[in-house]
Amino acid sequence: MPETVEQKINSLEKKIENLQNQRKDRLSMVIFSNDLDKILAALIIAVGAAAMDTEVKLFFTFWAISALRDKNKNAKGKDMKSRMFGAMLPHGTNQLKLSKMNMEGLGKDMVRGLMKKKNISSPEELLATAGELGVEINICEMSMGLMGFSKKEIIDYPNLGYCGVATFLADAGESSMQLFI
Amino acid sequence: MPETVEQKINSLEKKIENLQNQRKDRLSMVIFSNDLDKILAALIIAVGAAAMDTEVKLFFTFWAISALRDKNKNAKGKDMKSRMFGAMLPHGTNQLKLSKMNMEGLGKDMVRGLMKKKNISSPEELLATAGELGVEINICEMSMGLMGFSKKEIIDYPNLGYCGVATFLADAGESSMQLFI
Amino acid sequence: MPETVEQKINSLEKKIENLQNQRKDRLSMVIFSNDLDKILAALIIAVGAAAMDTEVKLFFTFWAISALRDKNKNAKGKDMKSRMFGAMLPHGTNQLKLSKMNMEGLGKDMVRGLMKKKNISSPEELLATAGELGVEINICEMSMGLMGFSKKEIIDYPNLGYCGVATFLADAGESSMQLFI
Repeated sequence: MPETVEQKINSLEKKIENLQNQRKDRLSMVIFSNDLDKILAALIIAVGAAAMDTEVKLFFTFWAISALRDKNKNAKGKDMKSRMFGAMLPHGTNQLKLSKMNMEGLGKDMVRGLMKKKNISSPEELLATAGELGVEINICEMSMGLMGFSKKEIIDYPNLGYCGVATFLADAGESSMQLFI
Repeated sequence: MPETVEQKINSLEKKIENLQNQRKDRLSMVIFSNDLDKILAALIIAVGAAAMDTEVKLFFTFWAISALRDKNKNAKGKDMKSRMFGAMLPHGTNQLKLSKMNMEGLGKDMVRGLMKKKNISSPEELLATAGELGVEINICEMSMGLMGFSKKEIIDYPNLGYCGVATFLADAGESSMQLFI
Repeated sequence: MPETVEQKINSLEKKIENLQNQRKDRLSMVIFSNDLDKILAALIIAVGAAAMDTEVKLFFTFWAISALRDKNKNAKGKDMKSRMFGAMLPHGTNQLKLSKMNMEGLGKDMVRGLMKKKNISSPEELLATAGELGVEINICEMSMGLMGFSKKEIIDYPNLGYCGVATFLADAGESSMQLFI
């Protein structure tokens, strides 16, 4: 039975819809590093995209999770190895170091000072703005365990969840942009 | 001569087909670093994607190639500079260091210990799984020369080839996801 | 009023055109690092893509901008903090270091020596080729200020501009490929 013109048009319409769903105006970003400079770059890109009404999904993994620790929250009941490892990692954005020229914190302080002078938002302010603009933060559950972090020590953020690599991949596969930082 | 409805529908069909071919359910990843943590992240993402039936093509370049060296294979007949450089680079995943907190191998051993405890696969196991799931490994031919590596010292892997940046770009341009790690 | 076949076909045509415009044969690359090895990788990928007639847009930000400084140009009239910071950063590709095994410049010289021997273009040659092939270089304006760089000290390049993260995102959102290096 040959297809009618109507049927053909309907089938094309469906294919086009599929293509539209396969690539959404969305930025999926893996944030892996906890270098102050890279966290800054990632947050500036994220906030910039959200301000342009692009959907933004951040996937914090490995070292980067330490940027989301709240130094005023306490995580008790960890085993010793996790506690040791966790103690050596930064507690929040305020303790992050530069990837280069950190010079025992001097370079970091210079960058933070220059940022203030040039009216560039600090990582703390960028995180707050990201939250207001609806940027989604997903934390890699496996890395939480590996780094010995507890959910109790993670910052309060309006749109924060925990997931695995499969969720990231499903989201990223539909995104118009993906970056690994 | 005006187009008939049939002709118009055929032309639309062709354009849709082109769009479908231009973006395949495929992850193209440049793996540049040989940090243990980054190799781990790359392999976890690769295996995760392959498990979701996404086609995965890895492009190992520069330092990352040292993660694919088999320490039990010997590469003879190199010139001295290449031999020196090669001797200083890791021989396989087992000799990779962390990008941070390596602490003369202590941090590396802690991470490996924690991974075992949390039942996370080692890089060696991830590579084996990647091979079983059909993940393609392409090694940058130019970097092989630059790093002074010989094909004789590369691990056995079911789906391994050598290529240039043009092959990576042709593959990546059609992929729904690209990452540089 | 029901749509005629003609109207339906026109509407499908428009949707297809939108899809075509949403994903151009274009590589958008954030270059963040100023490690010699990463700058090399980025330029090799950029030149490779341009040689394949893919549109290439590079977005130099943070440390990477130091790779675009011309050591023969002088930037006067900076405030002291910016001058100090700028003095410590590399002046152009010739002063870049390796991310690993730099060994006080020995590793860097070995890599440069091996590159010459293997007939691989130097970063300086790659930049020149990139310019000839129409690769676009955009420099992050905010980072210029943060790093204390002046436009007067940036190399001459045929297709160079200054912009913000919004321009990068608008370009990248339409690109078939995005990478962060």
